[in-house]
Amino acid sequence: MKRKSSAYAKAGVDIGLGNTLKDRLPALVRSTYGPRVLGGIGAFGGLFRAAFPGMKDPVLVASMDGVGTKLNIAVLANRHDTVGEDLVNHCVNDIAVMGARPLFFLDYLGAGKLDPDVFTSVVAGLARACRRAGCALLGGETAQMPGLYRGKDYDLVGCIVGVVDRTRILDGSRVRPGDALVALPSNGLHTNGYTLARRVLLGKMKLRVTDKLPGSRRTVGDELLRVHRNYEPALRSIPLRALHAAAHVTGGGLPDNLPRALPAGCRAVIDRRRLRVPHLFRLIAERGRVAEDEMFRVFNMGVGMVLVVAARDARAIAAKVRGRIIGEVVKGTRGVELT
Amino acid sequence: MKRKSSAYAKAGVDIGLGNTLKDRLPALVRSTYGPRVLGGIGAFGGLFRAAFPGMKDPVLVASMDGVGTKLNIAVLANRHDTVGEDLVNHCVNDIAVMGARPLFFLDYLGAGKLDPDVFTSVVAGLARACRRAGCALLGGETAQMPGLYRGKDYDLVGCIVGVVDRTRILDGSRVRPGDALVALPSNGLHTNGYTLARRVLLGKMKLRVTDKLPGSRRTVGDELLRVHRNYEPALRSIPLRALHAAAHVTGGGLPDNLPRALPAGCRAVIDRRRLRVPHLFRLIAERGRVAEDEMFRVFNMGVGMVLVVAARDARAIAAKVRGRIIGEVVKGTRGVELT
Repeated sequence: MKRKSSAYAKAGVDIGLGNTLKDRLPALVRSTYGPRVLGGIGAFGGLFRAAFPGMKDPVLVASMDGVGTKLNIAVLANRHDTVGEDLVNHCVNDIAVMGARPLFFLDYLGAGKLDPDVFTSVVAGLARACRRAGCALLGGETAQMPGLYRGKDYDLVGCIVGVVDRTRILDGSRVRPGDALVALPSNGLHTNGYTLARRVLLGKMKLRVTDKLPGSRRTVGDELLRVHRNYEPALRSIPLRALHAAAHVTGGGLPDNLPRALPAGCRAVIDRRRLRVPHLFRLIAERGRVAEDEMFRVFNMGVGMVLVVAARDARAIAAKVRGRIIGEVVKGTRGVELT
Repeated sequence: MKRKSSAYAKAGVDIGLGNTLKDRLPALVRSTYGPRVLGGIGAFGGLFRAAFPGMKDPVLVASMDGVGTKLNIAVLANRHDTVGEDLVNHCVNDIAVMGARPLFFLDYLGAGKLDPDVFTSVVAGLARACRRAGCALLGGETAQMPGLYRGKDYDLVGCIVGVVDRTRILDGSRVRPGDALVALPSNGLHTNGYTLARRVLLGKMKLRVTDKLPGSRRTVGDELLRVHRNYEPALRSIPLRALHAAAHVTGGGLPDNLPRALPAGCRAVIDRRRLRVPHLFRLIAERGRVAEDEMFRVFNMGVGMVLVVAARDARAIAAKVRGRIIGEVVKGTRGVELT
C-alpha cells in the first residue's frame, strides 16, 4: 500500500500520528490482502496480479466516488468508523450493477490537520468493508491542506477496480418490455441527499445528532450514519440468465439512475403503492415540506438497488434477495414513470 | 466515463454547467480512449479490456494522489488547465518507477460551487495529459459541497491503473552497491512544497502571481504552475537490463523517496556539487531563510526522478535521457546521504 510517509512529512505532522500510522495502519491494510496482492506497504504503487482464471475476455470495471456531505454528520457525531464502509460499499455497488466483482480499492483522505484517531477510524472502516467485499485496500493517499479544509472537516474519496467476463457485462442490452423491476431495500439515506436532510433535520427542526429522531428509537446521528448497504452478494446470488440489468440508486434517485440500466425504447413504470418508504424519508418530506417529486430525485426513498429481471423469475428472485416487485418495463422513451 | 449527472442534480446545478458538460466533456474524454475502452460515458463504471498480449504474468499497478496546494496557485492565477496535467503526470510517474505503463485514469473533483469554465479547463488538462501518456480517462466524479469547500477552492484527486509483466517489476531487488544514480531534471516544484513556497514567495516576499519572479523573466504564477514532467517515456527508453530501480521525487524530497527504491543494505550517496539546483529553489531558500536540509526534505531541488543503473551504463543512459550522474549506491543502512 502506498500511504506515503512523505505526505505527512511535508505537512509537518506530529510524531503521534506517525506512530499511530506505523502501529495500526499496516495491520488494517494487510487484513484486506488476498493472494493476488504483491509487494508491501510503502511502494510507489500497489501491485495486483491480473490473472483471471476461467474468464475468456476479462474486462476491468472502474469507478471513482466520494462520500459527500454524509461526512459532515460523521464530524458532528464524532464517529468516523462508518464513512469508509459507506464509500467502499457505494463503489462496490457501482461496479456490481455492471456485473463486476471487486478486486481492489484505493482511497484519498484530504484534511486540514489529521487527527490520528479519526484517521485510524476511517481506515478501519475502509478495511472492514474491503474485507467483507473480498477486495484489497491496495493504496491510499493522505493530504493535509490546512488552507483548503477547515477545522475537523475532511474529504474522503475512493476508487474501485473490479472485473467481469465480457459476455457477462450487464449493459442493459438484455432488458425487454415486460421485464419486472425488483427493489432491494435501502436502510436509510445511504450516501445521498445529506445536504437536504441536514437542512430539514438539523436546520429547520433544530435537532442535534445526539437527539432521538422523532418517531424512532435511534438518534439522528445513528439514523443518518447507517452504513450504505453492499448489494453485491445479492446480485451474485442471481443466475446471469435471469438478471437483465441492475441500477444502483444514488444521487438523482430512481429517476436519474434507473434509466442508466435501460436500453433505448424501454421505460420503467414504478407503482408507488408498492414502495415501502421508510419513516426517515416521510419525516423529511413532511417537516421540510419537500414535494414528493423532489424527494424521489434527491433520495433513494427506500430503494437501494433495482434489478431488472424476466417476469417469470421475478417472484423467486424477490424472495431470494428479500426484495419487492415494484413495477415493470414497458415500451416507450427511456425513463422512469412513477404511477 | 461515469461522470454522473446525478452528482450535479443533487447539488442543484445551473443549466449552464449542464450544457457545458453535455457539449464539451464527452469529446474531451473520448479523445483519450483507445481500442480497449468499452462502452460509453454515463455508465455506472468505466470498462477496460484486460488483455495484455505478450505478457506472461501481468500485474496491475495502481496509485492514488492529489495535486495538493498547487491548486491554490491555480485559483489565484485563475488558470486551471494545467493542474490536471500535473495530477496525471504525477500518477504516471508513480507507477512508471515500478516498471508499469499506464492503462487508465479516474478523477475526482470536489468543489463548493463548480464554475463550468474552470471545470472544463481542469478536464481539458486531464485529457491532454492522458492522451500524451497513452492512458484512457475512464471515469470521474464531481461533487459540489458548499459546506466543505469555500469560494473558488476545489480539491482534485486522481487514481491511475497501469500494468507490468511480473518479471519486469522494478522493486529495487536488482540494485547493487556500485550502481550509479542518474537524476532526471525537474522543471520546477512539480507538485510538492507549495505550502512553504507560498509562505515565502506570496507571504514573506509579498509577491503576487502576476508579478515577475525576481531573477526570472516569467511571472510567479507561470513559474509555480509549470507542469509536473512525465518521465515515463524516458524510463521506457532504457533497456530493462540496465535499469535497476527508479524513484519519483515527490513530497519528502530525495531523502524520503529515493530509499523507497533501494533494497536493505544499500545506501544512496549524492554529491551536492553535481546537482543543478534551479533558481526558484535558491530564491526560496535565501529569502525564506530555509535551511538546506529542510529544502531537500520539502522540494525536489531540481531532481524529478532518480534512476539507479549499472555503473558501466550510467554515462550512456544519462546522455540518452538528458540526465546527470549525481552519485552512487554504497553498502550501508538504507537511506540517502548528501555529501
